Amino acid sequence: MTRRAQILVIGFAKEHCPEIAYKAAYEVGLEVARRGALLISGGLGGVMEAASHGAKDGGGFVIGIVPQDDKGAANEFCDAVIATGMGFARDFVTAYSADAIIIVGGGAGTMIEVAAAYQKAIPIIALKGTGGMADRLVDTYIDDRKVERILGENTPQKAVETALALIKSNA
Amino acid sequence: MTRRAQILVIGFAKEHCPEIAYKAAYEVGLEVARRGALLISGGLGGVMEAASHGAKDGGGFVIGIVPQDDKGAANEFCDAVIATGMGFARDFVTAYSADAIIIVGGGAGTMIEVAAAYQKAIPIIALKGTGGMADRLVDTYIDDRKVERILGENTPQKAVETALALIKSNA
Amino acid sequence: MTRRAQILVIGFAKEHCPEIAYKAAYEVGLEVARRGALLISGGLGGVMEAASHGAKDGGGFVIGIVPQDDKGAANEFCDAVIATGMGFARDFVTAYSADAIIIVGGGAGTMIEVAAAYQKAIPIIALKGTGGMADRLVDTYIDDRKVERILGENTPQKAVETALALIKSNA
Amino acid sequence: MTRRAQILVIGFAKEHCPEIAYKAAYEVGLEVARRGALLISGGLGGVMEAASHGAKDGGGFVIGIVPQDDKGAANEFCDAVIATGMGFARDFVTAYSADAIIIVGGGAGTMIEVAAAYQKAIPIIALKGTGGMADRLVDTYIDDRKVERILGENTPQKAVETALALIKSNA
Repeated sequence: MTRRAQILVIGFAKEHCPEIAYKAAYEVGLEVARRGALLISGGLGGVMEAASHGAKDGGGFVIGIVPQDDKGAANEFCDAVIATGMGFARDFVTAYSADAIIIVGGGAGTMIEVAAAYQKAIPIIALKGTGGMADRLVDTYIDDRKVERILGENTPQKAVETALALIKSNA
Repeated sequence: MTRRAQILVIGFAKEHCPEIAYKAAYEVGLEVARRGALLISGGLGGVMEAASHGAKDGGGFVIGIVPQDDKGAANEFCDAVIATGMGFARDFVTAYSADAIIIVGGGAGTMIEVAAAYQKAIPIIALKGTGGMADRLVDTYIDDRKVERILGENTPQKAVETALALIKSNA
Repeated sequence: MTRRAQILVIGFAKEHCPEIAYKAAYEVGLEVARRGALLISGGLGGVMEAASHGAKDGGGFVIGIVPQDDKGAANEFCDAVIATGMGFARDFVTAYSADAIIIVGGGAGTMIEVAAAYQKAIPIIALKGTGGMADRLVDTYIDDRKVERILGENTPQKAVETALALIKSNA
Repeated sequence: MTRRAQILVIGFAKEHCPEIAYKAAYEVGLEVARRGALLISGGLGGVMEAASHGAKDGGGFVIGIVPQDDKGAANEFCDAVIATGMGFARDFVTAYSADAIIIVGGGAGTMIEVAAAYQKAIPIIALKGTGGMADRLVDTYIDDRKVERILGENTPQKAVETALALIKSNA
C-alpha cells in the first residue's frame, strides 16, 4: 500500500474541551501534517477542530467525518467532509478509517471510538496529561482478551511518531 | 406510554462466555419475562442467547437485533429478528432501543453499548460476580460528566427489579 | 424456522399520505395480524401508522423501527420500538428485517427500502391503486439483473396472502 | 465555504460494468480532477474504480467510502479510504457527502444513492448512453414531490461542467 497513513485524532467535544487539550490537539494535528500523514477526525469542535486546525496550518490534508447528514456541520479546517447522517454510529466510521488513533482527553464518545478500534487491533496512543479518557486509558486494555494495550506518550510529537512507527510495522 | 418496558441484556459473546455468566443471563431473561417486559438483545450467542432462552422459557417476547443483513444469524429463541446489516454499529441500535440495560460480563462490545446508552442517560445495571465489564463498571461513571452511575446488583431478580423501578421513575 | 413471518409495510409518510392509502394500509395491517404474522414498519406516521393501527386492532404484534435515537418518535400503535439513531439509513434495517414487503403508495424513501430488499431477493408486493411507488413499480424490475419482479395485488387481503405464500415457499 | 467541490461518481459495480461505462467513468474522473474538484466514490470496482483511476491520472484527490470495516477493500486509486463497516447503508454516506452526483450506468445500489441524494436535493446528473440507471433516470423525478429533476448530459466533460455549475449556484 502506498496510501498515506490516516491518523485519527479523538477526544473532548467542544463543550468539554479545556484549553490544555485544545492546544495539545493542535500540536498533534500540526505534527501529523508535518510528517505527511492524513488527519482524520469527527469533524466537529473541541479536539476535532483543534487537530484539524493544526494539520491545516502544517499544510496537511484534513478529513472530517460528521454525524450529521449535512456537510455544513463540519469545522472550517476540513479539506473534505464525509457526512454520515447516522448520528454517533459514525464513531465506527472514524475508528475503522484509522490506521492509528491518538487520544486527547475525551469522554464516552471517545471511549466508543477506542473500543471499536480495539476490536480490530488498530494502534491507539493516549496523550498523557490531557485529562479524560486519555489519562484514564493509558496503559490499560479495554477488555480481558488483551487484544492490544493502549500506549501513552508525553508529547504530541512523540505520539505521532509512535503512531507512524506502529502503522509502518503493521504494513 | 403504555408500551411494555424494553430491557436490553448485554455481555459476553459466545466465544468468551463462561458458564456462570450464561446461567446468570438465563435467569435475567426469565425474570424479564415473568415481570412482563420485552427482552431485547444483540440476537447472537453467549449472554445474548442465554437471556433470550430464559425469556422464552418464561413466556416472554424476545427481540434479537443482529449485526448481519440476514435474520438467519439470530439465535433460535428470538420471536422477532431485526437484521441491521451494519456490523457492530448495531450496538447503537440495541442501546437506543433499551428502556434499561442489564450487563452480564462482557468485553469491548459491551462497553460500546454501555457508553452509547450512558450518553442518553438510559439506566444501566451491572450484575455483580459475572466478570468482565459487569464487574469492571459497577459503581463507576463512564466519563467525567457523571451523567449516570452504573449500578450494581447481586442477583438476576434484583437486577430486573431495579431496572423496572428505574424505567417507571423515568416515565 | 418456527418464527412468525415478519411483514414490512412501507409507503407514504405522514405529509404525503392521501386518505385512500391510509385506509388501504390499515387494512393491510389488519390482515397481517389476522393471519398471525408480525407487522414491521418504519414506526412513524402515514402508511407506517395506518398499518400499525390496523395490526393492533387485529390483535397483532407491531414493531416500529424509527430513524431517531429516541423511541418517543414512534407512533402509538407500536408494541415494540427499535430506535436506530441512524437517520434514513434505517431503511436498510427495515428492509433486511422483512420476510416480505407490501408497498402502499410511497416516494423516494419507499424506493430505497424496495431497492435494498431487491438486492437480497426479499419478496415485494405493490398494492395497486394506492398511487406513488406502488403503482410505479408494479410488474417492474429494479434493475437489469432482474433479481425479482415486483408483484402487484388489487386488495390488502390478497397482498398479504401472496406475501405469506412467498415467504412459505422461501422457507 | 472555500472547500473544494466534492463530486460523487456512482454506477455499475465490477461484476456488471461494461467497457463503455468503465471508459466513460474514467473520463468523468479525469475531468473532475482537471477542474480541481475532489472525487468521491464507493471505493470498490467497476465505475467506482474507473472514476478513481481517471481522477488519479488527472492529478486529483480521490476518496473511497467502502461498505467494509477494512480499508483494504478499496481500489488502488484511492488517496484516502473511509471504511464504514455498515454494509450498503454506506450508500447514504456517499450520497450525503456529495455536492453533486454523476451517474454512469448502475443498478439497484445506484438507485439507492440517487434516492438518498434526491431527498436532500443534491444535484444529480446522468451520463447518457452508459446504460442501466443512467439511461433509466435521465429527465425523471424520483417521486411525485418533484424535488429535483435528474439531468442528462452527453459527455463526461459536460457532465462535470454541469455538476460544478450547479454546485456553484447552490453555494
